[in-house]
Amino acid sequence: MTPVNVQCRLAARPVGLPKPTDWEFVREPAPEPGDGKLRVEVEYLSVDPAMRSWMNAGRSYVPPVEIGEVMRAAGIGRVIDSHHPDFQVGEQLYGVFGVQRYAVCDARGLTRVDTSVAPAPVHLGVLGISGLTAYFGLLDVGRPEPDQTVVVSGAAGSVGSVVGQIARIKGCRAVGIAGGEEKCRWLVDELGFDAAIDYKRGELRAQLRDHAPDGIDVFFDNVGGETLEAALARLARGARVVICGAISQYNATEAPRGPANYMQLLVARASMTGFVIFDYSARYGEGVAALAQWLGSGELRSREDVVHGGIEQFPEVLLRLFEGGNTGKLVLALDGEQPA
Amino acid sequence: MTPVNVQCRLAARPVGLPKPTDWEFVREPAPEPGDGKLRVEVEYLSVDPAMRSWMNAGRSYVPPVEIGEVMRAAGIGRVIDSHHPDFQVGEQLYGVFGVQRYAVCDARGLTRVDTSVAPAPVHLGVLGISGLTAYFGLLDVGRPEPDQTVVVSGAAGSVGSVVGQIARIKGCRAVGIAGGEEKCRWLVDELGFDAAIDYKRGELRAQLRDHAPDGIDVFFDNVGGETLEAALARLARGARVVICGAISQYNATEAPRGPANYMQLLVARASMTGFVIFDYSARYGEGVAALAQWLGSGELRSREDVVHGGIEQFPEVLLRLFEGGNTGKLVLALDGEQPA
Repeated sequence: MTPVNVQCRLAARPVGLPKPTDWEFVREPAPEPGDGKLRVEVEYLSVDPAMRSWMNAGRSYVPPVEIGEVMRAAGIGRVIDSHHPDFQVGEQLYGVFGVQRYAVCDARGLTRVDTSVAPAPVHLGVLGISGLTAYFGLLDVGRPEPDQTVVVSGAAGSVGSVVGQIARIKGCRAVGIAGGEEKCRWLVDELGFDAAIDYKRGELRAQLRDHAPDGIDVFFDNVGGETLEAALARLARGARVVICGAISQYNATEAPRGPANYMQLLVARASMTGFVIFDYSARYGEGVAALAQWLGSGELRSREDVVHGGIEQFPEVLLRLFEGGNTGKLVLALDGEQPA
Repeated sequence: MTPVNVQCRLAARPVGLPKPTDWEFVREPAPEPGDGKLRVEVEYLSVDPAMRSWMNAGRSYVPPVEIGEVMRAAGIGRVIDSHHPDFQVGEQLYGVFGVQRYAVCDARGLTRVDTSVAPAPVHLGVLGISGLTAYFGLLDVGRPEPDQTVVVSGAAGSVGSVVGQIARIKGCRAVGIAGGEEKCRWLVDELGFDAAIDYKRGELRAQLRDHAPDGIDVFFDNVGGETLEAALARLARGARVVICGAISQYNATEAPRGPANYMQLLVARASMTGFVIFDYSARYGEGVAALAQWLGSGELRSREDVVHGGIEQFPEVLLRLFEGGNTGKLVLALDGEQPA
């Protein structure tokens, strides 16, 4: 029996926050996989701020999702048909399957998911691209040294929460910036951050002064905008600013805001460096091994914010990211009610 | 006979371009130098864009010039009284003497000027801080490799003109951005730049596309604003952006403009790094030796834009920098008519 696929396609380029009319849902039979291909039932979708940037036209680190295309998404799914010798029916795989119930794909970019190490959603979070982004972005780009002060924005998110924990593991002072008292308490009490700054309380610059009295040695930025400016104003000599994301700017309807005080890079003899995790793919093994070891020893904690639903829930789950609605890795588990 | 000093002091913090009322001129006897001190007759003043930034309050890489203080300036002067064993009357010295006719100072930061190598103004330009800024900023911070494309803004200025020439010497493709046809012709015809872009012709992004078809590997920025944004939009993978200055922003009356497209650093996996030449003081000897050798061999050309006048001319000479009025190193030679 041919399964009926449900796809979430991009219907229009959003202006500001994506609206319901920016999406189109299509139900049609999932095609048979041809030679060398697989049919996968998608079980979990990774929901990430960067998705918003993929919806825009223009030069970026990946091509934009085109109008009419299935929305790009990484996920975990189970093989239900295999015409590829390396993969068997029943195996759980990680891949960029898109926001759809069934994906027909070749083997490119697929990796096996070992749920004996950790449940599937963890493989989208700490043991997946989020954790690897934190690992290589902090250690390779940020190059923190023991006793230095590492400040991370978006600290309660899937990447930021791991950045601060790795900073602690490496002997740094970890300071997180997050929205709301509850998230801040979680960072300090559960994850062991040295301090957390609630940007919703305002006075971000004064709070940074209090919690980074000797300046910021590494600033890992997921947020951009005012947060980036506040951090630039507080850099220690020789600081490294790691540009990972700019969630505050992704839905801007006017020209995005650049850091007006970028000349602080000169004052502090500092650098600001962008990176893309895909460049580290040859070293993912090293990263996953380290993250898994810390997870096993209890030095690193994972948290997944799993929403149960169907493909139709994707647009509203995505919006949670921009409302500060998630703590830890946001995952859509496709085990909820499917539309008839 | 005690010489009468003329000082140019900061009277007010300018808003926008410095106005005549932002300055105060004081004439009073030049004090006798005490023990270990020298009295110097200032002969040449270095006139630099960074001076404008020293006039603002707030955190920077040097303390601001305070209201009522003599305006800070580097220069070359001749010892007329010495109470210091290392310096003799008649010697020509480089130092931060300030915008005044006579300076009384200790020996800190003084270096001898060897006019057998090159005339005094060259020691403020190619063989001075401007040349050293180009040398260390390009080679240490920018790290260009042979055949890479180096783009420099403010290319007809004292630093930019040297940056492009060093890039050529190191086997790179050198592209300058400057204002006006004449400057651009000078860069290509006289200094050997591979190309020059006249930003006054508009279409800066299109011109950069034409002259850096494979992207910019090193962008050495003296300008900021739209120029920086245009360059960021054209970075090659792994590019280095060297932040040396931001002349387009120094007189801004609104909040300075940050690069709205700074996320191109991520797209290009690029870095943007600020530096301050004073950090390289232990290596000035190495830099001057290299610059002097290239100057001697004819690989490097110097050009000084020497204005003859008195201390009272300083404010109008400074403004030339912001009107694009100079080509090469702007120097005020204090051999003009002195006010009675």
